[in-house]
Amino acid sequence: MSDEAVGGWLKVVGLGPGDDALITPEVSAALAEATDVVGYVPYVERVAPRPGLTRHGSDNREEIRRAEQALQLAATGHRVVVVSSGDPGVFAMAAALFEALEAGEPAWRSLDIQVLPGISAMLAASARLGAPLGHDFCCINLSDNLKPWALIEKRLRLAAEADFAMAFYNPRSRARPEGFEHTLEVLREACGPQRLIVFARAVATPEETLRVTTLGEAQPEMADMRTLVIVGSSQTRLIQRHAESAESAERQSTPWVYTPRSVSGADA
Amino acid sequence: MSDEAVGGWLKVVGLGPGDDALITPEVSAALAEATDVVGYVPYVERVAPRPGLTRHGSDNREEIRRAEQALQLAATGHRVVVVSSGDPGVFAMAAALFEALEAGEPAWRSLDIQVLPGISAMLAASARLGAPLGHDFCCINLSDNLKPWALIEKRLRLAAEADFAMAFYNPRSRARPEGFEHTLEVLREACGPQRLIVFARAVATPEETLRVTTLGEAQPEMADMRTLVIVGSSQTRLIQRHAESAESAERQSTPWVYTPRSVSGADA
Repeated sequence: MSDEAVGGWLKVVGLGPGDDALITPEVSAALAEATDVVGYVPYVERVAPRPGLTRHGSDNREEIRRAEQALQLAATGHRVVVVSSGDPGVFAMAAALFEALEAGEPAWRSLDIQVLPGISAMLAASARLGAPLGHDFCCINLSDNLKPWALIEKRLRLAAEADFAMAFYNPRSRARPEGFEHTLEVLREACGPQRLIVFARAVATPEETLRVTTLGEAQPEMADMRTLVIVGSSQTRLIQRHAESAESAERQSTPWVYTPRSVSGADA
Repeated sequence: MSDEAVGGWLKVVGLGPGDDALITPEVSAALAEATDVVGYVPYVERVAPRPGLTRHGSDNREEIRRAEQALQLAATGHRVVVVSSGDPGVFAMAAALFEALEAGEPAWRSLDIQVLPGISAMLAASARLGAPLGHDFCCINLSDNLKPWALIEKRLRLAAEADFAMAFYNPRSRARPEGFEHTLEVLREACGPQRLIVFARAVATPEETLRVTTLGEAQPEMADMRTLVIVGSSQTRLIQRHAESAESAERQSTPWVYTPRSVSGADA
């Protein structure tokens, strides 16, 4: 490795779902020491500009080129932070970074690389709702950009048979709106129309909306790419909130959603 | 609700896996305003004592009584933080709190209750390893205190068939060491001996250890109750690290573990 690389490092970090109060001190410290921030444009824009910091925003679906750029910068002595929304390890930049590392220059394997976790959209949405993921669950990326629909459908059916609660990322894009319609059809058949489903959109941002309904009432249009969808297990329950304070009244219409910790022997 | 309840609130928070740099500012602010901290003894002890703060530590398996105590304190005007390690919504106090809320006094449903997410052990372990949960995955509590073993085994077999990566909480206690041995047997049969498995113990604490091996080489003794276990999908891969710096040399023996984002059509 050249002398230029001395002092260079690369940290793949999670900015959490939107609210700065959900960014860990570890990530804030990394951003304060960085010379370069690399990521999808709207995430890079969440990092305030300052002298000595170069922000490299790139388009969606440019993950591998972005990862290569970050590795190259670190290899030439830059202190590079790759930003993801939520957690970098859940359908975000960490996997792309390691794909680029494995396929790229051997010298990159000597770089000082760290992944710093963040509050995932899944955990933030779960917290807002109560505890829908309080028992066993699975997490599926519904985008069929990177895998065939047949595999998604197979996983949905097996997850329903396992009676997992399910968290879904990237449920519905304008380019392929029919995928989420199919998902709802598969789940209605496998779980029945009374099963709870939650649409948590833009959690921890000013545009946050929460909608709790059933598979029978759910419409594909309730989801977009900013929506985290959670489908309950057979055990998931509601508790109506009786809000009295002004602050909590805003949330009055949304019941708590939680999955109890226990399953009795008869349910196995 | 009585006048005493004015100003009372309850926040169920996640302290993250151990390092204070992984506690969100939102959680730190809640702790700074609290009059009472309630939780399992070792987690309550992570909150520094100060004048005006009462720390209520309780034993493991006391979750419902602990939740009732917290609700009662909030109902009488206290500002109560219930602490969990990791994230409160993943096999921790949030579900117990809502179980107690649903079964408890109707007036409790008017309380100002919030759940504040934390960095889960699963996300912290994943980050240390690389990106083993970078594709679809599931998360299973292996403790059979709260569900029958037959249900755990059913979920393991279906998760293997779905080709999820798997994160396991509470793999092995002294009281029931045989459960994890059974888990390894089921997974060896379903996934084959070459499948990757990782033991991430006490992540983000001074006692942290990471061990990457295969199902064929895994021994039940590699896990205890402080271990988060991750089993890869069929696509999960290793990258050897070539550490040059002193800091990264410590981790040299542990390869990166990651699951690529894509699955080709032929794999479905």
